[in-house]
Amino acid sequence: MDNIKVVAVDAMGGDNAPVEIVKGCVEAVKEREDIKVLLVGLADVVQAELTKYTYPTDRIEVVPASQVIETAEPPVMAIRKKKDSSIVVALKLVKEGKVDGFVSAGSSGAVLVGGQVIVGKIKGVERAPLAPLIPTKKGVSLLIDCGANVDARSSHLVQFARMGSIYMEHVVGIPNPKVAIVNIGAEEEKGNALVKETYPLLKECKDINFIGSIEARDIPSGQADVIVCEAFVGNVILKLYEGLSSTLIGVIKTGLMSTLRSKIGAALALPALKNTLKAFDASAYGGAPLLGLKGLVVKTHGSSKAKEIKNSIIQCVSFKEQDISGKIQANICVGDKTE
Amino acid sequence: MDNIKVVAVDAMGGDNAPVEIVKGCVEAVKEREDIKVLLVGLADVVQAELTKYTYPTDRIEVVPASQVIETAEPPVMAIRKKKDSSIVVALKLVKEGKVDGFVSAGSSGAVLVGGQVIVGKIKGVERAPLAPLIPTKKGVSLLIDCGANVDARSSHLVQFARMGSIYMEHVVGIPNPKVAIVNIGAEEEKGNALVKETYPLLKECKDINFIGSIEARDIPSGQADVIVCEAFVGNVILKLYEGLSSTLIGVIKTGLMSTLRSKIGAALALPALKNTLKAFDASAYGGAPLLGLKGLVVKTHGSSKAKEIKNSIIQCVSFKEQDISGKIQANICVGDKTE
Repeated sequence: MDNIKVVAVDAMGGDNAPVEIVKGCVEAVKEREDIKVLLVGLADVVQAELTKYTYPTDRIEVVPASQVIETAEPPVMAIRKKKDSSIVVALKLVKEGKVDGFVSAGSSGAVLVGGQVIVGKIKGVERAPLAPLIPTKKGVSLLIDCGANVDARSSHLVQFARMGSIYMEHVVGIPNPKVAIVNIGAEEEKGNALVKETYPLLKECKDINFIGSIEARDIPSGQADVIVCEAFVGNVILKLYEGLSSTLIGVIKTGLMSTLRSKIGAALALPALKNTLKAFDASAYGGAPLLGLKGLVVKTHGSSKAKEIKNSIIQCVSFKEQDISGKIQANICVGDKTE
Repeated sequence: MDNIKVVAVDAMGGDNAPVEIVKGCVEAVKEREDIKVLLVGLADVVQAELTKYTYPTDRIEVVPASQVIETAEPPVMAIRKKKDSSIVVALKLVKEGKVDGFVSAGSSGAVLVGGQVIVGKIKGVERAPLAPLIPTKKGVSLLIDCGANVDARSSHLVQFARMGSIYMEHVVGIPNPKVAIVNIGAEEEKGNALVKETYPLLKECKDINFIGSIEARDIPSGQADVIVCEAFVGNVILKLYEGLSSTLIGVIKTGLMSTLRSKIGAALALPALKNTLKAFDASAYGGAPLLGLKGLVVKTHGSSKAKEIKNSIIQCVSFKEQDISGKIQANICVGDKTE
């Protein structure tokens, strides 16, 4: 029983709640015997959903929360007022150490604000970045920060680089991950004021494998493992990635259906094509952790289906097993001494 | 003869100079009888290249320039020191009104700096943005600014919105173009300091069809005709567009070649697929104009081939015919009075 990791899941968050959320939790406990899930939300609704499945009942528990934070609600106010919302109740479980992690597909703002306010940052961490994995030709890269706190300072970016390196090395398993800063040219003297200030700081960090600037065109080819940027830029990259991939895939499908000849070709080629495109499907990589907090908070896409929820839950387990929070705490301090 | 438009072309600029540049010029004068090209560069080299073709010799002229600015050279210094470089010589032709436009696939920095310094900005224009057309599901959108001057002010972005609207309406032919500002959420209160400051200013402009914020994920679907952003963000969007499209297309091709069955399918589907992907080929849309200058300067991609050079030359003609510079000058003033 000692090895069981307990993950709280927001049963009410996201476009497909509670149906896909509950399904994902059931799949997670069926796939891994070392996982227990606390489904946080409206008890009747969640319980009704659970009756659809057969699963090890001792490893899914419903934690009642009578309120729901909607995506459109101003986050700070929502966190303050809705004390019995699924997000607030679950974040308190994280804070109190009753769970090893929390997964939500709900309001990004509420999860980000609540994570910082309720769970709290590790001592020494200036800002908690949201760091999703994005698909590349070589595998995945960590894009850090895609959170809601824009207009970062250079010291924030340096910490992002450290936290991202730890995550990629210990959760994703890439030794000595290559770190790059998003820039509009490869040369050190290029960039906006923030990048120009941050570049020499990253270069000085002996604990970071800094490879210099990365232009956005080189991100999809996987030239860096950790891609550091300010949250506004990170959001633009993440969302353009999603939008462009789905637009291109749509355009390609339409093209394949345009002639009889191409339709026949498509029928033959589709299985192989689907396998390839799956590699560029962001949902396969689980959710984005909010790094630098005293406990683990994972935000998954609002449109998450069961598969993404399941993967995010499993991601929590690796995170806990590798003691990422502990490593960040140790490294943030080591880093500061090195400089 | 009055209707002939004269376009200077940098024979020495870009990865494929002078071969593809000269070829593009020959194709342009063959396609359109109202175009004359001045090929600026090392006279011997250009002349030797021209002997490969038969073309109306009265409509291609070689203008000698003994120096070449390399992409890696610091732009300001290069423009100052290399007075007889193809870029400087051609920009002087623009300034003196001897040509109707200038096309270069050479050093972006040198073209941008040289354009502002040698040709000069229209009175009232605070900053000259580089505005490429990017492919979308519906056609094209203008991404403004992708230039080298980062850390813009809100008044710059408002002018970009005006200049971009004029360009899209009169060169691309989209009546009352929809203008959006790149943001990390749809709500007015979201964004970084710059966007929050600019949003209400754009909303007040009666001469702009401002539709609000656009998230990067909605850019490829073509929801806005003019996409306003600061140059750092614009560069990231433009380059991620290039990188992700080519990576995805590569990944798809590899996928199609992975099994015998899919190979046969690919052979059947490829012609239709190629047509579709062509619509997402940025090179079809010519180069990016540097808007707000007293004359027309068009920067094409460094990897431009003959087709892109030809399209950029033809773009210069529309620009001149529609008197875009005149319209910008009139509108920048009207706009200032409106506010």
